[in-house]
Amino acid sequence: MKIQVINPNTSALMTAKIEQAAQAIARPGTHIVASCPEDGPVSIEGHFDEAIATVGLLNEIRKGMQQGYDAHVIACFGDPGLLAARELATGPVIGIAEAAFHMASLISTRFAVVTTLIRTRIIAEHLLERYGMANLCTSVRCIDEPVLALEDTNPQLIERIAEEGRKAAREGAGAIVLGCGGMADLRSPLTEAIGLPVVEGVTAAVKLAEALLELRLSTSKVGDLAYPVAKPFKGQFAHWGAT
Amino acid sequence: MKIQVINPNTSALMTAKIEQAAQAIARPGTHIVASCPEDGPVSIEGHFDEAIATVGLLNEIRKGMQQGYDAHVIACFGDPGLLAARELATGPVIGIAEAAFHMASLISTRFAVVTTLIRTRIIAEHLLERYGMANLCTSVRCIDEPVLALEDTNPQLIERIAEEGRKAAREGAGAIVLGCGGMADLRSPLTEAIGLPVVEGVTAAVKLAEALLELRLSTSKVGDLAYPVAKPFKGQFAHWGAT
Amino acid sequence: MKIQVINPNTSALMTAKIEQAAQAIARPGTHIVASCPEDGPVSIEGHFDEAIATVGLLNEIRKGMQQGYDAHVIACFGDPGLLAARELATGPVIGIAEAAFHMASLISTRFAVVTTLIRTRIIAEHLLERYGMANLCTSVRCIDEPVLALEDTNPQLIERIAEEGRKAAREGAGAIVLGCGGMADLRSPLTEAIGLPVVEGVTAAVKLAEALLELRLSTSKVGDLAYPVAKPFKGQFAHWGAT
Amino acid sequence: MKIQVINPNTSALMTAKIEQAAQAIARPGTHIVASCPEDGPVSIEGHFDEAIATVGLLNEIRKGMQQGYDAHVIACFGDPGLLAARELATGPVIGIAEAAFHMASLISTRFAVVTTLIRTRIIAEHLLERYGMANLCTSVRCIDEPVLALEDTNPQLIERIAEEGRKAAREGAGAIVLGCGGMADLRSPLTEAIGLPVVEGVTAAVKLAEALLELRLSTSKVGDLAYPVAKPFKGQFAHWGAT
Amino acid sequence: MKIQVINPNTSALMTAKIEQAAQAIARPGTHIVASCPEDGPVSIEGHFDEAIATVGLLNEIRKGMQQGYDAHVIACFGDPGLLAARELATGPVIGIAEAAFHMASLISTRFAVVTTLIRTRIIAEHLLERYGMANLCTSVRCIDEPVLALEDTNPQLIERIAEEGRKAAREGAGAIVLGCGGMADLRSPLTEAIGLPVVEGVTAAVKLAEALLELRLSTSKVGDLAYPVAKPFKGQFAHWGAT
Amino acid sequence: MKIQVINPNTSALMTAKIEQAAQAIARPGTHIVASCPEDGPVSIEGHFDEAIATVGLLNEIRKGMQQGYDAHVIACFGDPGLLAARELATGPVIGIAEAAFHMASLISTRFAVVTTLIRTRIIAEHLLERYGMANLCTSVRCIDEPVLALEDTNPQLIERIAEEGRKAAREGAGAIVLGCGGMADLRSPLTEAIGLPVVEGVTAAVKLAEALLELRLSTSKVGDLAYPVAKPFKGQFAHWGAT
Repeated sequence: MKIQVINPNTSALMTAKIEQAAQAIARPGTHIVASCPEDGPVSIEGHFDEAIATVGLLNEIRKGMQQGYDAHVIACFGDPGLLAARELATGPVIGIAEAAFHMASLISTRFAVVTTLIRTRIIAEHLLERYGMANLCTSVRCIDEPVLALEDTNPQLIERIAEEGRKAAREGAGAIVLGCGGMADLRSPLTEAIGLPVVEGVTAAVKLAEALLELRLSTSKVGDLAYPVAKPFKGQFAHWGAT
Repeated sequence: MKIQVINPNTSALMTAKIEQAAQAIARPGTHIVASCPEDGPVSIEGHFDEAIATVGLLNEIRKGMQQGYDAHVIACFGDPGLLAARELATGPVIGIAEAAFHMASLISTRFAVVTTLIRTRIIAEHLLERYGMANLCTSVRCIDEPVLALEDTNPQLIERIAEEGRKAAREGAGAIVLGCGGMADLRSPLTEAIGLPVVEGVTAAVKLAEALLELRLSTSKVGDLAYPVAKPFKGQFAHWGAT
Repeated sequence: MKIQVINPNTSALMTAKIEQAAQAIARPGTHIVASCPEDGPVSIEGHFDEAIATVGLLNEIRKGMQQGYDAHVIACFGDPGLLAARELATGPVIGIAEAAFHMASLISTRFAVVTTLIRTRIIAEHLLERYGMANLCTSVRCIDEPVLALEDTNPQLIERIAEEGRKAAREGAGAIVLGCGGMADLRSPLTEAIGLPVVEGVTAAVKLAEALLELRLSTSKVGDLAYPVAKPFKGQFAHWGAT
Repeated sequence: MKIQVINPNTSALMTAKIEQAAQAIARPGTHIVASCPEDGPVSIEGHFDEAIATVGLLNEIRKGMQQGYDAHVIACFGDPGLLAARELATGPVIGIAEAAFHMASLISTRFAVVTTLIRTRIIAEHLLERYGMANLCTSVRCIDEPVLALEDTNPQLIERIAEEGRKAAREGAGAIVLGCGGMADLRSPLTEAIGLPVVEGVTAAVKLAEALLELRLSTSKVGDLAYPVAKPFKGQFAHWGAT
Repeated sequence: MKIQVINPNTSALMTAKIEQAAQAIARPGTHIVASCPEDGPVSIEGHFDEAIATVGLLNEIRKGMQQGYDAHVIACFGDPGLLAARELATGPVIGIAEAAFHMASLISTRFAVVTTLIRTRIIAEHLLERYGMANLCTSVRCIDEPVLALEDTNPQLIERIAEEGRKAAREGAGAIVLGCGGMADLRSPLTEAIGLPVVEGVTAAVKLAEALLELRLSTSKVGDLAYPVAKPFKGQFAHWGAT
Repeated sequence: MKIQVINPNTSALMTAKIEQAAQAIARPGTHIVASCPEDGPVSIEGHFDEAIATVGLLNEIRKGMQQGYDAHVIACFGDPGLLAARELATGPVIGIAEAAFHMASLISTRFAVVTTLIRTRIIAEHLLERYGMANLCTSVRCIDEPVLALEDTNPQLIERIAEEGRKAAREGAGAIVLGCGGMADLRSPLTEAIGLPVVEGVTAAVKLAEALLELRLSTSKVGDLAYPVAKPFKGQFAHWGAT
């Protein structure tokens, strides 16, 4: 079983951290490689970054398919390009935000999200609405730090995330979702520091990908997730076109 | 890793079928035992059956905890007693309806459910609303057969389920959810007969239980899923009380 | 007209209090008897307590049917076993939470709920969502006291409930719903102390039961509330089975 | 206990029919008088008719208050002027559509509505959405006849309503709501002809008004239902102004 | 292109202010006249005021149609009589609340509303729910001043509105909707004072009316917005009846 | 006033058709130029096509900003890249699907959509849910033809669209939304052929852009639509990075 974990930003440090977290959680038979696009933004902190990063993500998906990966994880909390990737891929594709939300809903009736920036917070709220889970979430909180501040995690930053988690607990949250791919290594320290179950998306998505593969379930190719209609593409995207 | 799969009705035939399906999907390191209550209805086909069966289910959960099971699956499509079981249990508890809905939402944007009776159909609609997934479901369909008709699956019955699945496909569903624990052995033939991915709850729940255990995520004990408040119970339920 | 009011917990003191409140509000022609199960928890403070109490409740319903009661009230604010009881019963069955919510929605466009425990608060939020009334409720508040603290109501407790009610008024609530069967005797003092209309569920449910009976409306036996399908039950529940 | 039943259209025949149905259902101690405005449309079949009829309705409410009525029923299925009437009135005000929906939700988990015109059907759908009950309704059906066709009910008309009710039953409805004040006399024949519980709004509203009065619950005067702010009114509405 | 802007209250000062704001925003080819009813309340501050004002509004609409106006704007933030006016009118009819909400949703993903009274605040919340935009609104805030305080705008009042707007900005709103027709002249000063885009309904509605007219789109006369059914009206409303 | 209309696919024929429709509806003072990206798919018929086309769209937006355009229209019915474009742009950005939905909601209470492919139909359903307008739409219908079939519109195709529109009318729709940028020239013939108001997105979006510009309302730069955070971009997207 080969799972491709794609960090849609181009930060090698963050990709390494994500790979480590993904490999640590994978079961023995699972082969995991993390990669990031050659083209795109160094971090994803808004709709625009997501839009550009999606092209690199789709390139990685295609490469992954050619290299025989069975499933794909999108390791950015906004789940950028999720439905496009599902259209393209034969195997299952999992976003880390949806993965974390699903898992959190299985262990609590109310959870909170802690993310990086204010604008990321609003994007997380959009996602919860789109996924029909807004009423499961007590609040989305943020530490108001850029994503790349998480490249080198330091104790102060962990404490600030923990503090937001504890505030959420006082508001009635029963579990905490970490709202950034760059927090993939913080599950253990934060679980202890907050005192609630902490759900992290990269690890959650790897387990869901393994689960789907073992169930032999793959993306439905009937409906809007059918393979892209073959057609010409122009210019720098000509390589996506039908010959 | 030990997972307890509880068939909340008292049919030994159905329990055996469910155990077989669960064991077939489990990974090598997972030890699975299916059981059913000694007390309760032989099949679950409505709110009343669910209510009585829940007591037997909770007894099984308690036994399972004493026997060192790490997680519990409720193998009845109405997810009876789900929140009560989560309160009681230390480990994760997964219902097969929610498991199937979550998995279906990862591989399609629109799915349909095929269940047994008309009244079961309405209960499935209630569940979809409660889980915030009603708008992902194109329709809930039924074959109008009692649950125990599935004890001995025959080709005619499979064909009738398949026919409902194909009707759902024509309406725009991209995946089919099998809406009864007694259909646990029908994944393969129906996938072929319908031509869409077929999600079955027992197998889906086993994989989610494994996933949560590997993530070291367990039911939040903060909020409404905290352990039951210790207190006296009277009469035939005195054994549930605090000493 | 005979109405059975069932306190699903086994506290005789609370049952007496509920009976008194129900009889005080009943019209002359209405004969009301309150009862509680012989088997089950002494108070209901979570999903688990509700699940076990439901069996006792259903036994009481069956007894009530044999004794010729025309309608049944479930006097616990979580409305435990409501749909199961409706399946079983010929006459109407009313839960006190739904009764209070319906009545509150007829006299205000925004109401608040004051209940006992934090976990009860979350359960009340679940109910509001399930009944499609979440957007009518400004907040669910709790005094963080166990249910049985209400067996002997004292002025301090009343004052704490009133204080939460006044906070709700400042937030914009136009009416207060009392979120516990044990508050059945507090309508008058709290109405005065809060300065808003106070809706109490036991009394509301009795009036709705009378109303349905006079309208000759009873539970629909078409759909998921049809009588339970006759079938064998095993073990301690064998008496529920078809002969 | 004095309840004023207001038919907001000016048809004396329909007012008489409504009064008869209301009086027939009222309990011995309840004094019921039905009236209709002197000014306004002879039938209410759209938003415009509702808007004009609301003024006459509010005049009737004011007269009723002066005459010492304790509660008011708005006997038109669109619930015209409901919140305005609640602002004006001291006692409770009940609309027949909301009354019927509430009662139907207590005896079934899915109901259907049968009304007169296509445009009335859409208005009923709006109401269900506004009241948070859209997902309880399987469909709103109409017989495509003007409201005044119901002044003199004939067997053919009853049969056409029954036919729509039976269609709704086949679609999964467990109860039928009659969607016009002019159907107030059709409860009994239609219950028999359809084979499902039939909820009629005038009778339902009378019982809810009695219930609220006995509970000593009246419209909250805190929030948007507080008495109208005293102020000058000009021209033909000067009589509404503060002196 | 002739657009009729109707201030549904009878305040000449406010009508003048609204006319000025509407004319200032209109394009060269647009002829705008504002009017107010001769009959009705001097300000609209609740459901009752809205109900009475609606009759005057509909009279103005009819006059406007006779005078050849192409479109109509209802310049009161509660959008009173909107659907009734659409039934009556041939041309498009726009409410200023819906106009402001639509425009705000095109330039932000989260907006707040600042209105006058507490009861108006609740009415604005009702509107947001009815229009499906409740989740776009971070909060509805009010300055707790009567509508007519806005007849003569003074710096202190502007500052209080601005202060509520700045509070909303700190809560995460990206734009501010002014929730009263009497604020039609405050767009510029408030935009500067708050530091967010400020959407005002009268101006927004004028632009939407122009847009619909240029698109040759008018109210659909199929469905519940078809012309009122011709019928007799009695008494003071006899002039609305069919001859 | 300069408005840039961007056809996100690379079909010059369709771009010309869209430009013609946009210019025909623009007011005298509005300067409109339509363009399409040099890079990307020749038609947009799914999530993947949308994702790739978004990059070309954002390039066009940037060019348009440099050329002094005041507002931008995204002329593809899926509103691809809408929030990313809003982040990037200073002026307002309007998608043609949202534009059409908003306009349709102003002239009807129920509308239907007619689009090209089955997968486009599902995407339109997603959009309606995301925009909170799902309950305004009676159905989304499709003619099951590829987008480029609309490059050269022929009478047969128009008739098939009209037929779906008439079916929607029989189901209760009061207006029809054309669900493809390639239908920009079909407003007039279809209005006549269907007998309902027909809302077309390109023309609707141009009018909304003019309206916003005249209101001096532009995208809020507070919240998730603030300008993209300046940061390095790698590889083929390096030109998007901060220097």
